[in-house]
Amino acid sequence: MRAELLNRMNELRDLSGSINLSTWDQETYMPSGADGSRASQLGTLQSIYHERLTDPRVAEWLASPQTANADEAAMVHLLTRERDRAVKVPSRLVKELAEAQSRGLMAWRHARNEKRFSLFEPALQRLISLRREQADAWGHGGERYDALLETYEPGMTVKRLTPVLKSLCDKLKPLIAAIENRPPPLDVFAGKKFNPEAQWQFTMKLLPALGFDLTKGRQDRSMHPFSSGLHATDVRLTTRINEETPLPAIFGTIHECGHGLYEQGFLDADSRTPLAQAPGMGIHESQSRLWENCIGRSEAFWTHFMPQLQAHFLRELGTVTPAQFSAAVCRVERTFIRVEADELTYNLHIALRYELELELIRGNIEATHAEAAWTAKTQELLGLKVESPLDGVLQDIHWSGGDFGYFPTYSLGNLYAASLFAAMQRDIGNVDAMSAKGQFTKPLQWLRKHVHAVGWRHDAEEIVKNATGQGLTEVDFLQQITARYSALYSL
Amino acid sequence: MRAELLNRMNELRDLSGSINLSTWDQETYMPSGADGSRASQLGTLQSIYHERLTDPRVAEWLASPQTANADEAAMVHLLTRERDRAVKVPSRLVKELAEAQSRGLMAWRHARNEKRFSLFEPALQRLISLRREQADAWGHGGERYDALLETYEPGMTVKRLTPVLKSLCDKLKPLIAAIENRPPPLDVFAGKKFNPEAQWQFTMKLLPALGFDLTKGRQDRSMHPFSSGLHATDVRLTTRINEETPLPAIFGTIHECGHGLYEQGFLDADSRTPLAQAPGMGIHESQSRLWENCIGRSEAFWTHFMPQLQAHFLRELGTVTPAQFSAAVCRVERTFIRVEADELTYNLHIALRYELELELIRGNIEATHAEAAWTAKTQELLGLKVESPLDGVLQDIHWSGGDFGYFPTYSLGNLYAASLFAAMQRDIGNVDAMSAKGQFTKPLQWLRKHVHAVGWRHDAEEIVKNATGQGLTEVDFLQQITARYSALYSL
Repeated sequence: MRAELLNRMNELRDLSGSINLSTWDQETYMPSGADGSRASQLGTLQSIYHERLTDPRVAEWLASPQTANADEAAMVHLLTRERDRAVKVPSRLVKELAEAQSRGLMAWRHARNEKRFSLFEPALQRLISLRREQADAWGHGGERYDALLETYEPGMTVKRLTPVLKSLCDKLKPLIAAIENRPPPLDVFAGKKFNPEAQWQFTMKLLPALGFDLTKGRQDRSMHPFSSGLHATDVRLTTRINEETPLPAIFGTIHECGHGLYEQGFLDADSRTPLAQAPGMGIHESQSRLWENCIGRSEAFWTHFMPQLQAHFLRELGTVTPAQFSAAVCRVERTFIRVEADELTYNLHIALRYELELELIRGNIEATHAEAAWTAKTQELLGLKVESPLDGVLQDIHWSGGDFGYFPTYSLGNLYAASLFAAMQRDIGNVDAMSAKGQFTKPLQWLRKHVHAVGWRHDAEEIVKNATGQGLTEVDFLQQITARYSALYSL
Repeated sequence: MRAELLNRMNELRDLSGSINLSTWDQETYMPSGADGSRASQLGTLQSIYHERLTDPRVAEWLASPQTANADEAAMVHLLTRERDRAVKVPSRLVKELAEAQSRGLMAWRHARNEKRFSLFEPALQRLISLRREQADAWGHGGERYDALLETYEPGMTVKRLTPVLKSLCDKLKPLIAAIENRPPPLDVFAGKKFNPEAQWQFTMKLLPALGFDLTKGRQDRSMHPFSSGLHATDVRLTTRINEETPLPAIFGTIHECGHGLYEQGFLDADSRTPLAQAPGMGIHESQSRLWENCIGRSEAFWTHFMPQLQAHFLRELGTVTPAQFSAAVCRVERTFIRVEADELTYNLHIALRYELELELIRGNIEATHAEAAWTAKTQELLGLKVESPLDGVLQDIHWSGGDFGYFPTYSLGNLYAASLFAAMQRDIGNVDAMSAKGQFTKPLQWLRKHVHAVGWRHDAEEIVKNATGQGLTEVDFLQQITARYSALYSL
């Protein structure tokens, strides 16, 4: 490849690492008074990134890239795609969007404080209108939402996604109903307090036990848990600790650890190129959910970890068995709040958002009717009556930034995770047997080979297809969920 | 001012804030395995900074800057100076220097491990030669060292500096000799252990008590304490804790707090311009040393803080009086290691380095004779016989990066601090009386007005002159030192 092109790729990856450090710091250690200065610094880094990506010379280099092999061709393809999308959006629209996002966030917070959707509605309307305009600038084949999806899940389309999510919901609803007819599992956490420092220490044992390399990453605390890869050798995770229950810390850590293992698994040789990236948020989410749900909620997993957890919480959990613990963390219940939902009803929350935002972007629903539509959909999908917008249309931050197309990646994560988990077990045997002994090397090696080390050599669905023999499907997820929950609830 | 010019200034300050965040993180939270990736990321930020500074358009804008007032003229002057220096050094030399610095650091570490100067000597020779070349590229009036000084202390010259430092040493030596004829103060720390967490808590009380705003800054731990201003609203300090003695944590914190108060004191309106910078390292160091030495080592200061310190260390320091504590932290002793030296002998260490590096840059001493020269100078200035290069020529990191011209700024800091402290007391009255009540608002306000808020509107010596009525002088320092130590040692 031309040296200038590779240099520019290196530079863009370095800049993106610096941007990630800056946002990580913003959520962890930055003093509260530095909001304004950080916004300027981040804005400058982002506009330099944009300028160096859209630089006309890059187009010239990309036109005759002089690639020597398939990897270089893949790098050129990715940079071309990223650049094309960036140049298609006029700078006037970029600016209007940034302003609308900033106003959207403020309006959303204000509306939440006042518990009134109408205070957010004009900002939402503006964001929808600008995103439609942006989708047109990017281009699409008649379905604007596809152009937005492309931001989060390159290659995915409404046509591909809708039937899968519909079938998923159709089959989840009777399963959930059946589960709700059975007595709920014992709540082993009720009425207890869990020392925050002990919770922290346990999570710091979990990370290396699962294979996270603490010389190439770290964990801190933040209000909202997240993971961020500055580089494969510098992966930042955060967790949140709740004294009432250890579940957010434990499952948050396993979840972010899954993301972190992915980021640590990019190849050294790819590290300063576009290849060292996940090809979408769905497959990134598949890694967190595979560890959190497929592995971390199993009885086998807790057969191994329960004694360690009990060493920290002898009084609180000393008599709880691995089976009881596992059952307690697989409790199914239809509730209002997505982020607190179990792994079954969670997908109904996603379907609700997906269906709504698709109609909003299509223009079939006006922003002014979003709250009523949310309430109706909640009734339809979850059978619950929304009483407060905080339990409904104002609960998620995503729309306040106009992030339409993001939600479906969560369900894609669940579905990809299950398919990968099934394929993994066909290749390396029963993972529960390994979990019960605390042996996670083989599952990790399988993921390294089939997902992490691939980087962005292929789009997400292609990676899943190469690893599992088929692309996006709800079948593996439903199979695993049905097997596990039938056993837990004696269905 | 032209909008493009102001934009570019803003951008450069933002980039420099991001670079500072990146180096802060490197010394505090970065995982050990991320050395390589961080070096790339920092290298990219620095070369983007360089590119945008040396951009030919900037020269055009600077040629007709359209300034509207004196502040804008000062900004243009500063950017012009910075840019001129940057463009004068050919990129070949920049690259060779970066490589020699990297090799220098490795060779220095290796030489320290092996306790053999000869392992560092070739790297030192190379760095001297490149710095001489760089000094010629920058230009000078016959004294290359002046061009190097300009990096750390703009406006300062050998001609101005040498007689002041010489007079300082000449007068310090008999004072130190007289002190050493008296019995040393009681060592109130000997044989005790000081709980690290309690030390930390005490330092975290000191910071706000002195006026450091913890909503616009923070303190963390690091191997080598430092301070870094990302912006006036985001100032990072670090401290180091030693279980054997609380002094490094306490005086390190007061010292870095002094730097931090300076950084927090830049004006909001200046924040994204070249004005929001100290005009040199000497005046920055004056702020840390004023708080650490002029204020922090006084009996009055400990009259206020001793009860708080004793609350943390009742068993260890419960019977120690403020007078005993203050005497113990003013112990004078000729020793080998600069960073552990007291505030008197410290200046002899600086004189030693200054005289040596001046001769190395002039070419009067070859690198190969640096160790012998160090040994001879130590005998001459400190009356000590160096037995190991770790106690001598290999003790400081500065030369491993070719940082010649840096050391004198430490003594400039001491001298400026004393002059500012004297002028402050002429204006606001006796500071000890305020310290004894824990009232530091007036001293801080005085520094804000006369130093911090000035930013880089003037060069350092001019700021001191405006504040005190005279420029660089050793007189105030010697007067204060003589008064305090005569009392402490009954001279």
